[in-house]
Amino acid sequence: MSKKISWTADVAELLRVGEGFRLADVDAEATPAYDGGKSDGEDDLARGAAQLDELQERLFASSRGGGRHTSVLLVLQAMDTAGKGGIVRHVMGSVDPQGVWLTAFKKPTEEELAHDFLWRIEKRTPETGMIGVFDRSHYEDVLIGRVRRLASADEIERRYGAIVDFEKRLTDAGTRVVKVMLHISRDEQRTRLMARLDRPDKHWKYNPGDIDERRLWPDYMDAYQVAFERTSTADAPWFVVPANRKWYARLAVQQLLIRALQDIDPRWPAATYDVDAERKRLLVS
Amino acid sequence: MSKKISWTADVAELLRVGEGFRLADVDAEATPAYDGGKSDGEDDLARGAAQLDELQERLFASSRGGGRHTSVLLVLQAMDTAGKGGIVRHVMGSVDPQGVWLTAFKKPTEEELAHDFLWRIEKRTPETGMIGVFDRSHYEDVLIGRVRRLASADEIERRYGAIVDFEKRLTDAGTRVVKVMLHISRDEQRTRLMARLDRPDKHWKYNPGDIDERRLWPDYMDAYQVAFERTSTADAPWFVVPANRKWYARLAVQQLLIRALQDIDPRWPAATYDVDAERKRLLVS
Repeated sequence: MSKKISWTADVAELLRVGEGFRLADVDAEATPAYDGGKSDGEDDLARGAAQLDELQERLFASSRGGGRHTSVLLVLQAMDTAGKGGIVRHVMGSVDPQGVWLTAFKKPTEEELAHDFLWRIEKRTPETGMIGVFDRSHYEDVLIGRVRRLASADEIERRYGAIVDFEKRLTDAGTRVVKVMLHISRDEQRTRLMARLDRPDKHWKYNPGDIDERRLWPDYMDAYQVAFERTSTADAPWFVVPANRKWYARLAVQQLLIRALQDIDPRWPAATYDVDAERKRLLVS
Repeated sequence: MSKKISWTADVAELLRVGEGFRLADVDAEATPAYDGGKSDGEDDLARGAAQLDELQERLFASSRGGGRHTSVLLVLQAMDTAGKGGIVRHVMGSVDPQGVWLTAFKKPTEEELAHDFLWRIEKRTPETGMIGVFDRSHYEDVLIGRVRRLASADEIERRYGAIVDFEKRLTDAGTRVVKVMLHISRDEQRTRLMARLDRPDKHWKYNPGDIDERRLWPDYMDAYQVAFERTSTADAPWFVVPANRKWYARLAVQQLLIRALQDIDPRWPAATYDVDAERKRLLVS
């Protein structure tokens, strides 16, 4: 493993969606703030895994002592094949499974549709000490919801504000919200879909409906742009991660999580018992 | 990584609790069916991880095509410090998190106590395609339940039968149930608890109540023995895994899971669409 540190700038700063952000200007091939190539990236991912691992254990441990709620929520959104599953697998997979609570949101059930769109989301927010991961999220309700007109224009409008309020409540209550869009180019998606068609062991991942969605690409990009403008806040910002290079996307998301945890700076809780007295009890037990 | 295969016998056969099994005769230091040492064991664990990984993906994929319910449920029981967390971390941690559903059962809540003991268990049984993992389980209700007399003798008696019926229903419905007790010696537990007291970053894992439980060691061993006799069935057998050597315990549990999945023999589902037609649609999209 090389010793070179290949980060050249604050990746969180570079990828954050701020004032004047335009999704159309993002190059999905780029590797912002990163100087190395794929093999450096893999080395750095392994290094980052050890760091993330310790930070997660501290977060978990610190929550056991009671005190203030502290958790992390990683929200993953993307067009099909952009690599959400790879993030779950290769970034979250290096963390103790006991500290991660993963939810893959599917098409809402009838019961879910009979409630406000945030009802099913609220139930899956992470408890203290945990890293929650949303593979798709409440943003579907303003993305496919908008593109496919699954709700009225007024209702979609209402949702942006509802999301901002909801996320503010979460962050006020101690959850660090990290929202990531993995951004691939339309050509890259074609390549990846074709690869699924070429391999019988990947056929199950392909669905003819994927092409119907793909045809609406420009509408989806517009819907993302609006969602960013309406919901990227100081407390719960969006990050757009170029994802044509899978290794970069994984590395960048790992860094965003590491940053979030470093900001929380969780500490090992002090013993709530007399350590020496317990040693003595243990010896005679 | 050495090429030597160090398994010498059918580990599932050797560890299965059958007729005449006596927990008191199990040597927690032993490494049944395994010829190698720790470093072979670590090599074999990495090899097994790749195997388990593919089998899990096949299980997941095969369930997407609909058809019969197929899932795996790994039940982990043990005295404190025996290494349940290590199994979750080092065996399940090598599998795609999207295919694993982990439940750590705690002291029942008031709501849970207001229902039958299997109520909270049923809710956490794995859906088709998934590997469910129980860190503690319904067996607590006949282990600590019996030792601490948390229920009447009649009620404890009733539970053995209820568990057998419940697990039979699961297996009949397509869930492969793998029940594992990690078995450490009482001395080994003292060593491990002492190690927690010696490291400030492990203090949070220690609880003075651990010693109170430890003092009831013989009662717990009796309760395990009875539970094995009453609930180790052909369809849902218990496996007692010697666990003083952590590397062996992990390797053995991994093998038990691999066996269960090989028995299921999940296949990649066939495409439900015309692959060539989709290729053409994709090219013009």
